[in-house]
Amino acid sequence: MKILILNGPNLNLQGRRDVAVYGSTAFEEYLTRLRAVFPDVGLDCFQSNVEGELIDALHRSEGRYDGVVFNAGGYTHTSVALRDAVAAIATPVVEVHISSILAREEFRHVSLLAPVVRGSIMGFGLDSYRLGVEALLLQK
Amino acid sequence: MKILILNGPNLNLQGRRDVAVYGSTAFEEYLTRLRAVFPDVGLDCFQSNVEGELIDALHRSEGRYDGVVFNAGGYTHTSVALRDAVAAIATPVVEVHISSILAREEFRHVSLLAPVVRGSIMGFGLDSYRLGVEALLLQK
Amino acid sequence: MKILILNGPNLNLQGRRDVAVYGSTAFEEYLTRLRAVFPDVGLDCFQSNVEGELIDALHRSEGRYDGVVFNAGGYTHTSVALRDAVAAIATPVVEVHISSILAREEFRHVSLLAPVVRGSIMGFGLDSYRLGVEALLLQK
Amino acid sequence: MKILILNGPNLNLQGRRDVAVYGSTAFEEYLTRLRAVFPDVGLDCFQSNVEGELIDALHRSEGRYDGVVFNAGGYTHTSVALRDAVAAIATPVVEVHISSILAREEFRHVSLLAPVVRGSIMGFGLDSYRLGVEALLLQK
Amino acid sequence: MKILILNGPNLNLQGRRDVAVYGSTAFEEYLTRLRAVFPDVGLDCFQSNVEGELIDALHRSEGRYDGVVFNAGGYTHTSVALRDAVAAIATPVVEVHISSILAREEFRHVSLLAPVVRGSIMGFGLDSYRLGVEALLLQK
Amino acid sequence: MKILILNGPNLNLQGRRDVAVYGSTAFEEYLTRLRAVFPDVGLDCFQSNVEGELIDALHRSEGRYDGVVFNAGGYTHTSVALRDAVAAIATPVVEVHISSILAREEFRHVSLLAPVVRGSIMGFGLDSYRLGVEALLLQK
Amino acid sequence: MKILILNGPNLNLQGRRDVAVYGSTAFEEYLTRLRAVFPDVGLDCFQSNVEGELIDALHRSEGRYDGVVFNAGGYTHTSVALRDAVAAIATPVVEVHISSILAREEFRHVSLLAPVVRGSIMGFGLDSYRLGVEALLLQK
Amino acid sequence: MKILILNGPNLNLQGRRDVAVYGSTAFEEYLTRLRAVFPDVGLDCFQSNVEGELIDALHRSEGRYDGVVFNAGGYTHTSVALRDAVAAIATPVVEVHISSILAREEFRHVSLLAPVVRGSIMGFGLDSYRLGVEALLLQK
Amino acid sequence: MKILILNGPNLNLQGRRDVAVYGSTAFEEYLTRLRAVFPDVGLDCFQSNVEGELIDALHRSEGRYDGVVFNAGGYTHTSVALRDAVAAIATPVVEVHISSILAREEFRHVSLLAPVVRGSIMGFGLDSYRLGVEALLLQK
Amino acid sequence: MKILILNGPNLNLQGRRDVAVYGSTAFEEYLTRLRAVFPDVGLDCFQSNVEGELIDALHRSEGRYDGVVFNAGGYTHTSVALRDAVAAIATPVVEVHISSILAREEFRHVSLLAPVVRGSIMGFGLDSYRLGVEALLLQK
Amino acid sequence: MKILILNGPNLNLQGRRDVAVYGSTAFEEYLTRLRAVFPDVGLDCFQSNVEGELIDALHRSEGRYDGVVFNAGGYTHTSVALRDAVAAIATPVVEVHISSILAREEFRHVSLLAPVVRGSIMGFGLDSYRLGVEALLLQK
Amino acid sequence: MKILILNGPNLNLQGRRDVAVYGSTAFEEYLTRLRAVFPDVGLDCFQSNVEGELIDALHRSEGRYDGVVFNAGGYTHTSVALRDAVAAIATPVVEVHISSILAREEFRHVSLLAPVVRGSIMGFGLDSYRLGVEALLLQK
Repeated sequence: MKILILNGPNLNLQGRRDVAVYGSTAFEEYLTRLRAVFPDVGLDCFQSNVEGELIDALHRSEGRYDGVVFNAGGYTHTSVALRDAVAAIATPVVEVHISSILAREEFRHVSLLAPVVRGSIMGFGLDSYRLGVEALLLQK
Repeated sequence: MKILILNGPNLNLQGRRDVAVYGSTAFEEYLTRLRAVFPDVGLDCFQSNVEGELIDALHRSEGRYDGVVFNAGGYTHTSVALRDAVAAIATPVVEVHISSILAREEFRHVSLLAPVVRGSIMGFGLDSYRLGVEALLLQK
Repeated sequence: MKILILNGPNLNLQGRRDVAVYGSTAFEEYLTRLRAVFPDVGLDCFQSNVEGELIDALHRSEGRYDGVVFNAGGYTHTSVALRDAVAAIATPVVEVHISSILAREEFRHVSLLAPVVRGSIMGFGLDSYRLGVEALLLQK
Repeated sequence: MKILILNGPNLNLQGRRDVAVYGSTAFEEYLTRLRAVFPDVGLDCFQSNVEGELIDALHRSEGRYDGVVFNAGGYTHTSVALRDAVAAIATPVVEVHISSILAREEFRHVSLLAPVVRGSIMGFGLDSYRLGVEALLLQK
Repeated sequence: MKILILNGPNLNLQGRRDVAVYGSTAFEEYLTRLRAVFPDVGLDCFQSNVEGELIDALHRSEGRYDGVVFNAGGYTHTSVALRDAVAAIATPVVEVHISSILAREEFRHVSLLAPVVRGSIMGFGLDSYRLGVEALLLQK
Repeated sequence: MKILILNGPNLNLQGRRDVAVYGSTAFEEYLTRLRAVFPDVGLDCFQSNVEGELIDALHRSEGRYDGVVFNAGGYTHTSVALRDAVAAIATPVVEVHISSILAREEFRHVSLLAPVVRGSIMGFGLDSYRLGVEALLLQK
Repeated sequence: MKILILNGPNLNLQGRRDVAVYGSTAFEEYLTRLRAVFPDVGLDCFQSNVEGELIDALHRSEGRYDGVVFNAGGYTHTSVALRDAVAAIATPVVEVHISSILAREEFRHVSLLAPVVRGSIMGFGLDSYRLGVEALLLQK
Repeated sequence: MKILILNGPNLNLQGRRDVAVYGSTAFEEYLTRLRAVFPDVGLDCFQSNVEGELIDALHRSEGRYDGVVFNAGGYTHTSVALRDAVAAIATPVVEVHISSILAREEFRHVSLLAPVVRGSIMGFGLDSYRLGVEALLLQK
Repeated sequence: MKILILNGPNLNLQGRRDVAVYGSTAFEEYLTRLRAVFPDVGLDCFQSNVEGELIDALHRSEGRYDGVVFNAGGYTHTSVALRDAVAAIATPVVEVHISSILAREEFRHVSLLAPVVRGSIMGFGLDSYRLGVEALLLQK
Repeated sequence: MKILILNGPNLNLQGRRDVAVYGSTAFEEYLTRLRAVFPDVGLDCFQSNVEGELIDALHRSEGRYDGVVFNAGGYTHTSVALRDAVAAIATPVVEVHISSILAREEFRHVSLLAPVVRGSIMGFGLDSYRLGVEALLLQK
Repeated sequence: MKILILNGPNLNLQGRRDVAVYGSTAFEEYLTRLRAVFPDVGLDCFQSNVEGELIDALHRSEGRYDGVVFNAGGYTHTSVALRDAVAAIATPVVEVHISSILAREEFRHVSLLAPVVRGSIMGFGLDSYRLGVEALLLQK
Repeated sequence: MKILILNGPNLNLQGRRDVAVYGSTAFEEYLTRLRAVFPDVGLDCFQSNVEGELIDALHRSEGRYDGVVFNAGGYTHTSVALRDAVAAIATPVVEVHISSILAREEFRHVSLLAPVVRGSIMGFGLDSYRLGVEALLLQK
C-alpha cells in the first residue's frame, strides 16, 4: 500500500508560520511520527507552491499510489484546474485541512475540491493527515 | 472513555432511505461493528428528529461524556440554536456527515456547526463516524 | 384508500388567525365537509407545531396511508430536515398552501419541499386541501 | 360555464418534446379526455408562441369566459407584460404547470404570474389542467 | 413636425385597468386633448402587445417621424431587443411611464431603455406623455 | 397584570455559557430580582429548547397573560413558524435580546420577529428583560 | 404661483465641471432664461452642498411655495434623510436630473427620492428643469 | 445625572409628519412629560438635520453628559461617520427609534450604529425615549 | 444538405446600425458571399423581430433542414421560451453572435441558449456565421 | 502562416479523462489530423499545467506566430493574469473550449479571456480547435 | 508650492480615539513635524465633520492650492457628492487613510473617491499623509 | 538596508503593453533611476509570471531583506496562496500598483493582499514603487 501526501502552497513553512492556527510542529517531524503509526504503508510526501506542479503530481500518482492525502492550502478555494485534475485521475483523493476552512474568513468557505474527492477532513490540526490516511485505508 | 453518538433528523431511517447516497447498512448494525472496533470506548447513541431534543442531549452530555460525534442531518444548514448549544458546552464535539455536504445541493453547502466544533469529517459513508471516534481519541 | 392530512405550525389556529388571509372556517369544520365530498376515502388529520413530530408522522405514514396532503406552514421555507423526510419515504406527498406562498413576503417564496413532492397546489384557500386529495386520487 | 385553456410557447409540441418530463400524450388527445370529464363545461383551447398574442387572448377573455386555465410556459419566469395583463382583467385565472417549476433549473423558480392569479397548481403532469378546471369550478 | 406615440403591452386597456394606479381616462380620449394642446404637431399613435411589432414600429419610424414618445410598459424591464432597436435607429426616443417605475415592485426598478433614450419622464399620470412631447420639441 | 417571560433555546444555560457575552447571573436568580422590582406584576417564566413548544406557549398565552417578553434565542433568525405564531395571537409581545443581535455574526442580524412584535430591546444584558416588562406596562 | 428650484451638491459648479456631461451653461444664466419662459411664475433658487441645509429648505418650503423642482445631485442615491424630508412635507416635489441617472455608473441607478416625489424627469440636460416646472403647473 | 437627547434629521417635524407611523405628539410636549417622569435627571435636547452637527454634538457630550439617547433618524442606515463618532467617545450612547426599523422598508433594516452603542430600543413610539433614559440609568 | 440561418431582432438592420460593433455589410450581401463559399449547401435565411415567430421557425425546421445557424440577438439573454424551443426539436442548432456577448454589457453575459445548442461561436463579426456553417458540416 | 495551439491545465490527459464530456481522442492524434486539414499552416502545440508558463508562452508568441488558438482549461474562469497577458500582446488570440463552458457548472460560466480575445468557440468537441484555426485564417 | 491637507469627520479626535488603530499623536503635533520635513511647501490644514463643508473646501481649493491630501474618513465609503466634487475640480487630489480600509469591516472596503483621485495611500499610520505630500510633489 | 522589489505577472512587459494605462518606461530603466534616488539602499528586483515562484521569493526574503515592495499584478485579486505567504513571513511587505485597482474593472477592486501588508499605494504610475520604498524606510 503506497500513499502520497501532497501539500500545497506555504505548507513548507508549517511549524514556523501562524503558530496559533497551525501549531509549531514542522511537517517533516510530523511525517516521521506518521510513518511510525502506519509501518505497513509506504508514505511519500511532495510539496510545491506552484499550482501546475501539484497538477503534475496528481497526474503522476496514477498507477504509482493507492491514494492521495491532499492539502491544497490556499488553492483549495480558487483552483478550477486542480479540481479538474482530481476529477481526471482514478487515484482516490482525500482532502485534508489543518484548521477548519468553514470557521475562518469567508473566502475560505468554498472548497472547489470537495465535490470530486472521496471525503474531507478538517480542523484536527496535523492529525487531519493521520485521519486522512486512515480514511484511505478504510475505503480500500 | 465514554462517547455519545448523536444523530439528527431522518437518521433513524439509515439503511432504508436513498440507498445510493447513504448505503444500505442500518445504523444499529453499524454501531455493533463500531463497538467491536473500539472495545475500550463506551459508545452510546441517541437519535431524535426534534431539534430541541438534540439541544437537550448536548446540554446533558456535559460531565457524562468525553466527547460527542454529531451528525445533525438537515439541521446542520439551518439551526443557529444547535450551533449555540455546541458553543455553550465544554464537551468536545466532532461534526460528521455520511455524504459530503459540499458536493450536494447548494443549500447544504453551509454548516453552521463547523465554526464551533473541533473538526469536521464528511463523505466517507458510515466510516465518517469511525473517523469521528478516532478524532476524539486523538484529541485527548 | 387512506389519506393523511398533515398540518404544520399554527394551523391549529385556522379560522381564528389572520382571517383576511386564511378565512374564518376552523379546520375541523372544513374536514367534516371534506369527508362528505370523499365518502370512500379514509381521511385522517394530524397537526403539530413541532418540526420533529411532523418528521415522525411522515416516517409513520409509510404502509399506513396511500398518500399525504401536507401543509408545512412556516417550516416550508426553512426545513431541510422535513424535505429529507419527504424524500426518504415512499408514500406520495402533495404540498398544499391556503394562500399563495409566491404572492406574499419574499422569505416565503422558497419551498424546500417542492422538489421532492408529487406536486404543489396553493392559493385556493381551504379548497387547496380538496384539490390535494383529488390530485392524490388522480395520481393512483 | 365556459373556460379557456390558454397554452403558451412550445406547448404545441406537447407529447413530442422531452417525453421524460412532459409525458407522451398530445394536448389535443388530452383535451378530448378532459371534455369527457367535464361534460357541462364549455372548454376552449388557444395556443400561441407569441407573448403578445397571449396578452391579446387574456384581454379578449373578459365577458366571454368564466375563467382561464393558463400555462404560460417559458414566459412564466420572464414576462412582466403577461403579469400586467392577468392583473388588468376581471376573469379569474388559474396558473398550471405540467412539471413543478420549483423543482427544475433555478431560472424557472420564479413565477411572475403567481401573485396575480387565483392559485397555482404544478407538478401533476397533464392532470394539472384537470385540477385547474376543478379549482375554477370550486372558486365560483 | 411629426411625432409617434408608441404604446406597449396592456396600454390598450388604459382607463379600464387598475384605475387607482393609472387613472380612468381612455388613451384615445387623452390623445384628442393632446392634439389640441399641440395643434402644430402631427401626433400618430401605435399600440401593440407584441414585442416584435414594437421593434418593427421603431425601425419604421426612421425618416417618417421627428421623434418617438415611447411607453414600453412591462417590456421596459426585460427587453434587451427593444433596447437594441432604440439604439439602432436615429429617431430621437423619449421614455415615458404613467406611474413611477422606481416607486413600484422591485422588478420594475430597472429600465433597459433608459441608457439609450434621450431622457425619461415618469410618475405624472397621462401628463407624462404631454411632457414627453414637450421634451422632444425642446430637444430639436 | 400578568406577564409571561418566554425563553428560547439555550437560555436554560444562562449564567454558565459564554460568560463574556451573556454575564454570569443565572436566570432564576435574575427573575427573583425582577419580581422584587415589579411587585404588582405576576411574572411567570417558561423555557424550552423545542421550537414547537414555544409556539404552543404563545398560543396558550392568549387570555392568560397581558403580555409576553420573548427572547427567542437562535430561533429569532430562522423561524418563520414562530413569527407566524406571534402574528396569530392577540397578546402583545415584546422582543428582547441580552446582547445586540446587530453587533454579532451576520447570520444573527436578521430578526424574523421584529416586524410582528410591539417593539424590540437588545444589548442591555439581562436588563433587557426589565426594560421589556417596563415597555409592556407603558403600552397598556 | 411660486416655485422653488432646489439644487444639491456641486450644482454651484454647473457650466464649469464635466462639460461633456452637464453642458457649459451656468445655472444663473439658465435661470434667467427660465424666468422668461414662465413670466407668471415666481421662480426662486437655493443651492447648498450641505445635506442638512437641503432638508431645512424642504421643511421651510411648506406654505411658501406651490412646488419644488429638486435636483439632489449625489445625495439622490444615498440620502434616506432627504427622502424622509420630502415624504414629511405637503409641498409637491418633482425630481430632476441633468443627465440620466439610469445611464451612468451603477451606484447612480438608485433614486431614494423617486418613490416619494410626484414624478421624475431626467436626461434632458438643463431642460429637465423646464420640464419640471411644466410638470408642477400641470399637476395643479 | 445629565442626559442628552440627540435627535437627527426630520425629528423637528415630529407630531406633524406621517402621523400614522410616528404619532401626533410634538417632541417638545413629550419632553415636558419626560422631565416630569425623571425629576432628578437633567434632560437636555438637541436636534439637527446636519450630519456633521450631530457628530459635533457627540464629541461635545464627553465630560458634559452621563449618557446620550440618540435617534439618528435616516442617518442610522447610511452614516459611517456617525458610527465612528459614537465609537470615538467615552459617553455611553443608547440608540432609539420611534418605529421598528426592522419592520419597515429594506433599506432601513441596517443600523450602522447598533454595533457601537450600549443597546437599542425600537418600536415603542415616543416611549422608546423613556425606555432609553431608563436603560442609561440601569447601566450606571 | 440544407441549412437555415435564423436571425432574431434588429438583425434586419445589419450594416446600418452601430457600424463600429457590427460592421457595415448588409446581411443579404454577406449571404451571397456565404453561398459562394458553400456551393453545395442549400442556405435559407429567415429573420423576425417577433420572439414567437422565431419559435415557430425552429419548430418548422424539423425534417426540413439539417441544421440551424441561430443568432437570437437580444432574445439570447432573456428568452426561456426560445431555449425550450431549441431543446424541444431534433434539428442541430449552432449559436452565433457577431460580437462577443461576454465582452459587452453585463446583462449580455448570460446565454440561455448555450446549454441546449451544439456549440457557440462569437466575436468574429459576420464570419461567425461562416464558422457556424462549418461547425454544422463538421458535426454531421 | 504559423499558428500556436496553446493548451492549459489537464489537457495533457485529453482522451483519457472524462470521456463522456471530452471524447476519447488523444490530442497528439487529433493534431496529426489537423495538420493534414491545413497543409499550408505551420501548427505548433504547447501544453503546460503551470499558469505562469502559459503567460510566458503568450509573451514569446509575439513575432513568432500569426495567431494563437488558446484553450486555457480551468484557468479560463479565474486567471486575471492570463487575461492581462492576452491583452498585452499583439498576436491575435482565439479562445476555444471542447465543451460549452456556459452549459456546465456555474463557476465555469465566466470567461475572463473573452473580452480580450478575437472571438470564442465552444462546444464542438475537438473540432473547436479546427474552427479556431479557420477563424484565425479568416481574420487575416 | 501650496498644499491643502483636508480632514473629514472625527479626525479632530485623532490621538484621542481608538489609539490601537490610529495611534496617540494628535494631528496638530504631527502637522508641525510634517512642516519641518517639507520646509519649502506651504501646508494648510482644514477639518470639518460636515460633508458639505468638505465639498466647499474642495471647490475653494481651485487656484489656491497645487494639490490636496484628502482623508475623507467615514465619508469615503458613502459620499457620491464628495466624489463628484473631487471629479469637478482641476486641483490634483491624493486620497490617504491612516489604517488600511481594505483590512477593516466590509463596509469600509469601498472607496467612492479612488476612481477620481490621482492615487491612494493607506495603512501607514500618520505617515500616509507624508507619503501623500511626497506623491503630490512627484506628480508635478 | 536591503529591499526586494517583487513583480508579478506581465510586469516583464512594462513599457511595452497598454501604454495609456501603464506608461512607456521599461522597468529596468525605472529601476536605474530608483537606485539613484536611494543610493544607500540595496535594491534587488525579481519578476516571475508563476504564482508559486512569487511565493518562493517571499519565503526566501526572510532574513535577507528588510522589506519587500510587492506588485502582484493580476494575482492581487485572486490568490489566497500569495496572501497566506505574505502573512506567513516576518519581512514587512508594502503593496504597490501602477494604476488604481479601485478605478478599473470590478474584478480588480478586491485586493486579497491588503489586509496582510503594512500598507498599500496605488495609482501613481511607476512612482508607486518609489513611494513604496519611502514607506518601508519610514516604517523602520
